[in-house]
Amino acid sequence: MKTQLIADFLSAELVGDPGVEIRSVADVSNAGSDQIAFAENAGSAAGSAAGCLLIPLDASVETKACVIRIADPKLAFARVAEKLHPAKIRPAEIHPSAVISETARIGKNVFVGAFAAIGEGSTIGDSTQLLVGAKVGENVVIGKSCILHPNVTIEDGCTLGDNVILHTGVVIGADGFGYVRDRDGYVKFPQVGTVIIENDVEIGANSCVDRGALGETRIGSGTKIDNLVQIAHNVQVGRRVVIAAQTGISGSCVVEDGVVIAGQVGIADHATIRSGAVLGAQAGILPGKIVRPGVWWGTPVQPLDDFKRQNAHVKGLERLKAEVKAIRDKLDVFLAAMKDN
Amino acid sequence: MKTQLIADFLSAELVGDPGVEIRSVADVSNAGSDQIAFAENAGSAAGSAAGCLLIPLDASVETKACVIRIADPKLAFARVAEKLHPAKIRPAEIHPSAVISETARIGKNVFVGAFAAIGEGSTIGDSTQLLVGAKVGENVVIGKSCILHPNVTIEDGCTLGDNVILHTGVVIGADGFGYVRDRDGYVKFPQVGTVIIENDVEIGANSCVDRGALGETRIGSGTKIDNLVQIAHNVQVGRRVVIAAQTGISGSCVVEDGVVIAGQVGIADHATIRSGAVLGAQAGILPGKIVRPGVWWGTPVQPLDDFKRQNAHVKGLERLKAEVKAIRDKLDVFLAAMKDN
Amino acid sequence: MKTQLIADFLSAELVGDPGVEIRSVADVSNAGSDQIAFAENAGSAAGSAAGCLLIPLDASVETKACVIRIADPKLAFARVAEKLHPAKIRPAEIHPSAVISETARIGKNVFVGAFAAIGEGSTIGDSTQLLVGAKVGENVVIGKSCILHPNVTIEDGCTLGDNVILHTGVVIGADGFGYVRDRDGYVKFPQVGTVIIENDVEIGANSCVDRGALGETRIGSGTKIDNLVQIAHNVQVGRRVVIAAQTGISGSCVVEDGVVIAGQVGIADHATIRSGAVLGAQAGILPGKIVRPGVWWGTPVQPLDDFKRQNAHVKGLERLKAEVKAIRDKLDVFLAAMKDN
Repeated sequence: MKTQLIADFLSAELVGDPGVEIRSVADVSNAGSDQIAFAENAGSAAGSAAGCLLIPLDASVETKACVIRIADPKLAFARVAEKLHPAKIRPAEIHPSAVISETARIGKNVFVGAFAAIGEGSTIGDSTQLLVGAKVGENVVIGKSCILHPNVTIEDGCTLGDNVILHTGVVIGADGFGYVRDRDGYVKFPQVGTVIIENDVEIGANSCVDRGALGETRIGSGTKIDNLVQIAHNVQVGRRVVIAAQTGISGSCVVEDGVVIAGQVGIADHATIRSGAVLGAQAGILPGKIVRPGVWWGTPVQPLDDFKRQNAHVKGLERLKAEVKAIRDKLDVFLAAMKDN
Repeated sequence: MKTQLIADFLSAELVGDPGVEIRSVADVSNAGSDQIAFAENAGSAAGSAAGCLLIPLDASVETKACVIRIADPKLAFARVAEKLHPAKIRPAEIHPSAVISETARIGKNVFVGAFAAIGEGSTIGDSTQLLVGAKVGENVVIGKSCILHPNVTIEDGCTLGDNVILHTGVVIGADGFGYVRDRDGYVKFPQVGTVIIENDVEIGANSCVDRGALGETRIGSGTKIDNLVQIAHNVQVGRRVVIAAQTGISGSCVVEDGVVIAGQVGIADHATIRSGAVLGAQAGILPGKIVRPGVWWGTPVQPLDDFKRQNAHVKGLERLKAEVKAIRDKLDVFLAAMKDN
Repeated sequence: MKTQLIADFLSAELVGDPGVEIRSVADVSNAGSDQIAFAENAGSAAGSAAGCLLIPLDASVETKACVIRIADPKLAFARVAEKLHPAKIRPAEIHPSAVISETARIGKNVFVGAFAAIGEGSTIGDSTQLLVGAKVGENVVIGKSCILHPNVTIEDGCTLGDNVILHTGVVIGADGFGYVRDRDGYVKFPQVGTVIIENDVEIGANSCVDRGALGETRIGSGTKIDNLVQIAHNVQVGRRVVIAAQTGISGSCVVEDGVVIAGQVGIADHATIRSGAVLGAQAGILPGKIVRPGVWWGTPVQPLDDFKRQNAHVKGLERLKAEVKAIRDKLDVFLAAMKDN
């Protein structure tokens, strides 16, 4: 991809040689003459050997490289990377070892790797790729251009939209965790609902999205979920939500559009996280709570500023104790002196 | 299942048409005329279009539906659901792609799906189902009517009772995490014990139960474990214990019968959780601690009431600081006035 | 292995019969006459029926057993266990169901189990074992004497050293979690780097190590990682680091040689954990922090002693409040009396 083509693709100004051939992306400090990099300020760009540099509009960089000025260099870099390193498109193929039900409907240009399985009545959309060992149950619907990495399992009756990426070991549609206490133990509450994953969702390795007990569990379009995340039955995750690794969301929670959730957060059942809320790492939300817009921290969560102030107060406890002792002593000395008079 | 048959099965009183055909369970607000639902009070039942409603003994509901009054409608609902939606029984079949050792003993009515494997000397009980890609090592014993979901792995020498359900990606019997520090690094402590899973246990997707180092790791009968849970080597989990998602139990802990553990709890090694204890979400137990009956919260855990009181004190710190300052000022003003006199 | 041979192997003093045949290791309280056990003091050794006992140099034990005195009995026990219970060496075999690219290079004495897969251009070192369902992508390099347990997945372009043990369900080289916010959602930041796992690393079941975004994620030699751990993109883990279950390390963190990290710890991005640091269970590290040598606890982490002192202060808050009230009352009573005079 020639530098001029990149500038045109980004609708951005090019300074320097328009004909440098760029083959891949790289970090600004390691990039070579056939690579593109980005810098968020002039300082980090200085001395880069990149063949092409994406820099902010107001940066002035002394470089031999071809330079493209753009409002958000990191975003531009991600866009160029999508062009230079598109997700691998495997040619249409059904591996002879794959086990596919005769009643499954397989679209055009579908790749089905070794040891993959597709159950009765399931539908695989055009250009979708099931990598080695991916398993699709019965009556599953999968849209177009999805990638199911190795060992991904989609259980019976679940639905995926288009452009969904599920990383290795993801489990969609296992039974939710619900029981009713009986005299002698626990009776399983029915887990007969489903999971709906909308378009452009990406879910990280070994994460789990359980099926609804009676209704559905839903992940809204454009939502991105990291590794080892637990989404319980009947959770409704909105659109363009970001959920970092090892977070757990309990049954029947609602996470509205655009929420950002850091790692190892725990959300108890029936809570609602409103659009505009950001939950800090390891935060804990109590059952049924409604979390309003803002940055939240701690267990139970508080607004970040309150959390910081409270933390400062706690750290100041030793001084406060000493101060109380000093006042008491002063008062006692004075009262003793009064008595003596 | 006709409404009269349901009432008879529950030994409960039926009010209304005994001949309505009920085909499935549903949520009270979405249920249709061939569905059964439950309501825990008259309010939520009102207006339901369910063909049959399970309601409390003392509730009076205006409905066209057939109504069954019963002490615990939710439990009754779960019981009826087990009848209407039994776990899928796949017909006896050994998929031609499965790899089964000649020395394995396979019971009657066993289902072995595609890409499943069973190692030397292992035993699979009657009516057990190994779904696609389930893997059983060598000298494993699996009881009757178990379900091993896709990609479940049972490592060498482990034992499962009857009616055990393991969801997709569960790993039973991986090596425990034990090393002895040496001058140059770590030497692996032997992990040559086993895992015993008793009857009626259910374990959620991608959870792990490690084998004992020298002895056994045991999960007692009727215990229910959620997704992404870690049970370390030599842990003894009692009967009818409930463990929610992402909880981790370290080596050699004892969790007694009937304990309830919420999500993301961490229990350090050699702790004992006594029957009657309930551990709140994200709770942390220190090594070797004995946790008595009651509800526990926080890290390190405290009784819930103490935790709440302490939390209130912490939140009141700003006021306490102001109060101390006011006292000091009052005292100083007074002392200064005395001096002037 | 005769007792004299064991003593010789350990270069330690033997007291008792040098000709007892020892076949396996066991716990000191359960060991039989053909088993070896260890005890860290005379008390726990007393009455053991072990055929051979490893005890400290200064312990004096009344036992019929053959006794070996050695400085660190537990370490000696681990060393003997490695001899008596070596990791199972499967005979060289390529299972007929395995799918191996013609361009893959397979070393000598390699075991490839059923349903295993090896992609184009990958290299498998001598004596390495891929158990049932292990999956190796394209252009992967795996060293000698590694064990990939069932369903382990190594994604394209990753590198493993020698003697690496990956337990069931481990995922090496899934995409890191990086996006750039756009007007309409998120654009994937390129995840085109790699993972390098050095020699003698062991990683527990269902743990994940993501590939670098642009550079590499690295796990240093001799490092041991427990189950369900998350290592994000571009993390640099040093040598002989220990990481317990369910810990998560965010992008671009550096964990230096010899660090010890307990379970459920969360480390935010770009933090550095210096050699000599020990992080207590459930600890939380803020982004970009540098954690110095010492024992750290809590969220955000503090030195353990500070954490304990602070905890004591918080627990003393009720008393402090009462004390402040008492001082205020005393002062008010006095001031009122003064006024009356």
